[in-house]
Amino acid sequence: MKKFDQQLIEHILKKRFFIAQSAHIYGGVSGLYDFGPPGLSLKANMLSLWRRHFVVEEDMLKIDTTAMLPYSVLKASGHVDKFCDILVFDEESGECFRADHLISAVLEKMEQTDEVISDLRRVDCMTCEEVDATIEKYDIRGTSGNKLKQSQQFNLMFGTKIGYKGDQWVFLRPETAQGQFLNFKKLYEYNNENLPFASASIGRAYRNEISPRGGLIRVREFEQAEIEHFVLEDEKNHPKFASVGGLVLRLLYGDKDVEMALGDAVRQAIVFNETIGYFIGRTALFFKDLGMDMSMVRFRQHKKDEMAHYAKDCWDAEIYTSHGWVECVGIADRSCYDLKCHEEMSGISLRSKRRLAEPREVDEWVLKLNKKEWGPRIREKFGEFEEIVLSTSQEFIQKNLVCSEGRSYVRFQYDGHDVDVECLRSKKMVHVENVIPDVVEPSFGVGRILYALIEHSFYSREDMKPVFRFKPMVAPIQCAIGYLIYSDEYYEHIIRIKKYLSEKGFVVQVNERSCSIGRKYASCDELGIPFFITFDPGFASDRMVTIRERDSMKQVRVDVDDCHLIVEGYINGKTKWD
Amino acid sequence: MKKFDQQLIEHILKKRFFIAQSAHIYGGVSGLYDFGPPGLSLKANMLSLWRRHFVVEEDMLKIDTTAMLPYSVLKASGHVDKFCDILVFDEESGECFRADHLISAVLEKMEQTDEVISDLRRVDCMTCEEVDATIEKYDIRGTSGNKLKQSQQFNLMFGTKIGYKGDQWVFLRPETAQGQFLNFKKLYEYNNENLPFASASIGRAYRNEISPRGGLIRVREFEQAEIEHFVLEDEKNHPKFASVGGLVLRLLYGDKDVEMALGDAVRQAIVFNETIGYFIGRTALFFKDLGMDMSMVRFRQHKKDEMAHYAKDCWDAEIYTSHGWVECVGIADRSCYDLKCHEEMSGISLRSKRRLAEPREVDEWVLKLNKKEWGPRIREKFGEFEEIVLSTSQEFIQKNLVCSEGRSYVRFQYDGHDVDVECLRSKKMVHVENVIPDVVEPSFGVGRILYALIEHSFYSREDMKPVFRFKPMVAPIQCAIGYLIYSDEYYEHIIRIKKYLSEKGFVVQVNERSCSIGRKYASCDELGIPFFITFDPGFASDRMVTIRERDSMKQVRVDVDDCHLIVEGYINGKTKWD
Repeated sequence: MKKFDQQLIEHILKKRFFIAQSAHIYGGVSGLYDFGPPGLSLKANMLSLWRRHFVVEEDMLKIDTTAMLPYSVLKASGHVDKFCDILVFDEESGECFRADHLISAVLEKMEQTDEVISDLRRVDCMTCEEVDATIEKYDIRGTSGNKLKQSQQFNLMFGTKIGYKGDQWVFLRPETAQGQFLNFKKLYEYNNENLPFASASIGRAYRNEISPRGGLIRVREFEQAEIEHFVLEDEKNHPKFASVGGLVLRLLYGDKDVEMALGDAVRQAIVFNETIGYFIGRTALFFKDLGMDMSMVRFRQHKKDEMAHYAKDCWDAEIYTSHGWVECVGIADRSCYDLKCHEEMSGISLRSKRRLAEPREVDEWVLKLNKKEWGPRIREKFGEFEEIVLSTSQEFIQKNLVCSEGRSYVRFQYDGHDVDVECLRSKKMVHVENVIPDVVEPSFGVGRILYALIEHSFYSREDMKPVFRFKPMVAPIQCAIGYLIYSDEYYEHIIRIKKYLSEKGFVVQVNERSCSIGRKYASCDELGIPFFITFDPGFASDRMVTIRERDSMKQVRVDVDDCHLIVEGYINGKTKWD
Repeated sequence: MKKFDQQLIEHILKKRFFIAQSAHIYGGVSGLYDFGPPGLSLKANMLSLWRRHFVVEEDMLKIDTTAMLPYSVLKASGHVDKFCDILVFDEESGECFRADHLISAVLEKMEQTDEVISDLRRVDCMTCEEVDATIEKYDIRGTSGNKLKQSQQFNLMFGTKIGYKGDQWVFLRPETAQGQFLNFKKLYEYNNENLPFASASIGRAYRNEISPRGGLIRVREFEQAEIEHFVLEDEKNHPKFASVGGLVLRLLYGDKDVEMALGDAVRQAIVFNETIGYFIGRTALFFKDLGMDMSMVRFRQHKKDEMAHYAKDCWDAEIYTSHGWVECVGIADRSCYDLKCHEEMSGISLRSKRRLAEPREVDEWVLKLNKKEWGPRIREKFGEFEEIVLSTSQEFIQKNLVCSEGRSYVRFQYDGHDVDVECLRSKKMVHVENVIPDVVEPSFGVGRILYALIEHSFYSREDMKPVFRFKPMVAPIQCAIGYLIYSDEYYEHIIRIKKYLSEKGFVVQVNERSCSIGRKYASCDELGIPFFITFDPGFASDRMVTIRERDSMKQVRVDVDDCHLIVEGYINGKTKWD
């Protein structure tokens, strides 16, 4: 496998302000990074490709939800109870370790008996009791050799209090997905009640990592690009699967590690369904378009005991970097778990309509909100309240039903009022049933993909000078313009070329540093700028400029009046450099 | 002034999923809003225009910094101590009021004596003691008539703890500006140490508002687009000011409320300098491009006692909405205050170089880091540490100097080490001096501008049907495609038109609802879609389709093979509709 010079790459990233540690003048906070101009530009270009490749291509519904979520949402989603790491502490120094990291490190160095192998496999999903038992069994110590105290759970969410009373907890979302689940009903309506459809969201998420390290790989504030593809359980064949079926990818499943066509993987039921398969294929194509080295990309299926109990299938896209194989995308069939949890906890029906083969009689509760009584009291919010009442799930009604004096009602709290809404049993013939759809979720870690791309794009020339070989459309800056010695007659041309290319959406850097042209080129190579237009003294006689390409280091001389068009062609790939 | 039907507009915004209250299925959290597909698209188009209009036009350096900031940053910036509201509580019910709101409401209803007017003016900047005195003076009560308890300060930042120890406070940034100040040195270096330059950032900020109301106007999680223009104190003439000098704007200053050319306002020193003037002008042009009704835009200068003590001049761009005049942009000359605070608190020099008219001898401290001793101990982080040492400000050295046994040193803590770095006094001739630059900050409230634009764009037709008249390039969706009755022969054309326009970056909605064409048009009007292409039965004979424009409701019939080009011309304004 290729060796990456992690230290050199990180040095260049900081020196050229791709990234900086947040609040670095105060010593910084580990796990928090800022993006400087080239880093942000690279990220923006990558996300722009992501939008075109996924969102526009599949007509996904884009939404943008708040990072703050109330307690109830994360209680329902399971994050309050389960989004935890287990910590152990050195009995003497109080030093803290993540139990899974510490146990793995010890067990991996031991003789690999069946028992050790089996314990190693379970490390990621042990309870506190199991951690303590394992530590005792192998007499595991802290790194300084001291005994360890009883293990503790540590929730990875950041919590804060909202409002002046200090009694209302909110959390910073640990993933952007929840905002999409919470809006399922509105998205479904926006899509004219058609299934399947997907929503997509790009935004920040937060995890209070215990000991963040590894640059952009494990951070506390990070960007996610997540897709939630809502689809009925038995309709997971994908109409466009054929377009990716022929892709041969490296797949890891069970004990296997093979190159296989996606179509075969689905046929052999290694990949659970075409929808998962389609997103695996599209992810691979996205990486390729981005410029990732595909020999360092693999798709690994989660083992049964590694997956959440509700998940039907889950594949990680892993990319090889100096940190080893890094999980960059997770593609999971999460069944109807998320929507079901929120329906149960909120009492609001989160269902889609499915046409029945033939009409069926149902016997249901119907809520009768008394508009005469409550309209004048709730006033302009009545419409909103009515919507809530009409969205109430049958299960919620059943659970909260009060029967008194021959009448049945459910009590709602709304806007300071206790509203008793009458419930009647009603029989009717229906042509549709209400079902909670499944969701297939491709979830992209933006910072990790970016970091992997940076490492894959890096190389050193024979003279050891560093270069990033970003594709022209992905590079932070598409074109630099410079000169050997400044002359006023260049000015109008520089302005014109810059204006033309900027209007096409490209970033142009006018290089005004006073140094040799060789140093200028080297400086641009460190930013991965693919093209450099140079004005030199010859210009006065022939009105020609030089275009230099980054990777071949070859140069062509062209008429100054055409150079903007020529460079444009190189950038958008309509003209090949060679 | 125009009347806006706030209730109707908010109803449509929610019904058509421009916005939704966050976690609405759980009853929502006040002050938190999600953006659905049309709302997000509108916001994205607005920000895209903002980027072109400001960032690309002025070659600003884009950066993207974390929302989490450590305590020290916000202590230095003054937010820990001063970013507060004063609260008063009902003695009996415990109900909470913002002191400024409560006092203003009472005083505004009283006879406007000189004393009342003067107190009213001071409401925004009163201390707790002044609030209590004012409440006693006028015998101000809570809304239920009860007496009030002593007032309390309430900090508006959201705090949370980072790491497992629970001893490290971080705050969610109350503004994106701080991330730019913290990176000043890196930005300055990235800009080859040239001044002036501006950085720009778009991102979320957070304020724990006491009683959020007013839709998108006063929220707890919001988006800001902020520019920090770094410039030397005496170099605030702007080379491009002439391009906006002729703009006539409504300016409020002192007791004046006049229409005036910006050039005159600067000449008369009403606007403090050309740089502020330039950004006022560019902001007005941005609003105009966006489609804002310019008769409802004004620029109001802060009064002396309204401005922070360090600010030299400050203008708010206010836009009229159903909530009255709303502050949407603040354009302030903040002097060198922010950088100075951070330099003092961090000990890191945040200065730019200014060429001296003639060389001057200086007598300074120079730090000598012993590489032989510390290189092997700090190892790969030595370079980073050396950078910190070399960036240390003279003031920090002076303050922390220890003299012992004839040697002077400063102690640094780095990576667990106490490092004593020797300090020597050194005389030398210099050609530059180090000065902290001033900053002019135009700060845009994205949600407020968006909401104002929505209200300004709204109107009802004679039949009362609601319409948003968004400009084609700003509208959430540029074009809808539909039909009277579906026919298979439309399919390939619909796909082709959609693909063509999507590739140009436009959003196209295929309207598959089965309803009358009138209802389809009405539905698209509610989303502000400017153009609608309709296939009708006539197509079979003449291969013509109808293009309908939203505001005139006029229709033209064109050949299906040209319609994508024709609509493209209408959208990008190259062809006029009439």
